[in-house]
Amino acid sequence: MEKIGFIGLGIMGKPMAGHLLKAGYSVSILSSSASAAMIKGQGATVVDSAAALAAQCDVVITMLPDSPEVQAVMMGDKGILSGIKKGSLYIDMSSIDPAVSREIFSALASKGVDALDAPVSGGQAGAEGATLSIMVGGTPTAFARALPIFEKMGKNIVHIGEAGAGQVTKACNQVVVGMTIQAIAEALTLAKKSGVDVAKVRAALLGGFAQSKILDLHGQRILDRNFKPGFKIKLHRKDMNIALQTGKKTFGAPSRIRDSGLADGCHYCER
Amino acid sequence: MEKIGFIGLGIMGKPMAGHLLKAGYSVSILSSSASAAMIKGQGATVVDSAAALAAQCDVVITMLPDSPEVQAVMMGDKGILSGIKKGSLYIDMSSIDPAVSREIFSALASKGVDALDAPVSGGQAGAEGATLSIMVGGTPTAFARALPIFEKMGKNIVHIGEAGAGQVTKACNQVVVGMTIQAIAEALTLAKKSGVDVAKVRAALLGGFAQSKILDLHGQRILDRNFKPGFKIKLHRKDMNIALQTGKKTFGAPSRIRDSGLADGCHYCER
Repeated sequence: MEKIGFIGLGIMGKPMAGHLLKAGYSVSILSSSASAAMIKGQGATVVDSAAALAAQCDVVITMLPDSPEVQAVMMGDKGILSGIKKGSLYIDMSSIDPAVSREIFSALASKGVDALDAPVSGGQAGAEGATLSIMVGGTPTAFARALPIFEKMGKNIVHIGEAGAGQVTKACNQVVVGMTIQAIAEALTLAKKSGVDVAKVRAALLGGFAQSKILDLHGQRILDRNFKPGFKIKLHRKDMNIALQTGKKTFGAPSRIRDSGLADGCHYCER
Repeated sequence: MEKIGFIGLGIMGKPMAGHLLKAGYSVSILSSSASAAMIKGQGATVVDSAAALAAQCDVVITMLPDSPEVQAVMMGDKGILSGIKKGSLYIDMSSIDPAVSREIFSALASKGVDALDAPVSGGQAGAEGATLSIMVGGTPTAFARALPIFEKMGKNIVHIGEAGAGQVTKACNQVVVGMTIQAIAEALTLAKKSGVDVAKVRAALLGGFAQSKILDLHGQRILDRNFKPGFKIKLHRKDMNIALQTGKKTFGAPSRIRDSGLADGCHYCER
């Protein structure tokens, strides 16, 4: 079995690393992690720097909040890049800017290291239950090498395309999720304030063209007045900003996302 | 069987009235309808005015584009109101402003006529296949009387609540459908312009929290470059405006729809 280094033991990363330990993998972690003690108790090896971690592992996984954190742990002093061995595999499971992913992967390629972007969807529950959706960009060879590892952490694992394709897919996912949540919140608020039974509106809409997993699950949570957080709005905003930035790079300006592309000739926009 | 008058033989109304004729109902229509000749060939009785139609029927159904058309055929010269008999049932299957529905129903109640608002979802295909979703507002008695008729035209038939509740539900439906179509169009455009396989993005998103009937059906149509209209954008804009106007009456100003109500305390909006 490949030796794995795991950096980023937060709400998501801690249970993900735990699943790898339970599956019998040797897992190295950083001593600076707040969760280091807990994971060490499960059998993890603790090392002092990302460079040292990378030097002793075959596969290095990061699960960090945003692009700057990934850049720092990769390119910074005693970072992954300064220690990683030729022939290693780097997997970034963070949700970051696809352009940053591609930059990092280029730097790794020059050292003979293959890389995958593999952001996830499913939140804390998916991480704890090992049922994450994993959207992967990179070479088929790297994907095949990583698949046994992904299967310990997720269920719906899709190889989308080349480097960065996983991050683009995640950005698309977050655009759809964010806008659908807004639609459901506005519609059910309109129903409630109009004095109409919200449960019956949800049921009626679920039976038709307005059906979505978000109307089903969050619609029920709205009915139950269950607002226990399952994800941080700051991270969703970060993801929406990645989508805007990716659009800006692709289209020239964020405002053109709405005006361009697939909708040409569509009857929904009268163009 | 009750004698039915049907006003509004457009893309939706023509097949709906056809289903009633096929089910054995006596159906009266207006001579002014462009589809009169065709429906007459199926056995419909043609009359010269809405008043005359209402006078000879037990149940009067309207299926018209917007509030002004319903008001005109109801309140206008030789309108339904001037001819309809005490004990009749009026069913408005148009999608109109709930406030206009309630006004019309009050006028009818003073003549001893019961009424239902019963807007539909499912478009031309649903009308032709008799698989419409029907969202109904009005008394339980009126709903029970209309149910055998609805069952000839639709499948997912839900009695939501009092008069106007069907129209409010339809407005909620259109808010969700419109915003979800926008989300899917933006996300798949972002994927395509970023050079990522749109079919794989759709498949990955369908397996997770971004799943919706619109991603499934319209996502596939986008992949197939099938932009054959199934609904008119002008009518969807009309419906969105009904939602805004209903919100304005309820909240005081349209902009407050987004700021009020169910989302209070929700982790998605940091409030």
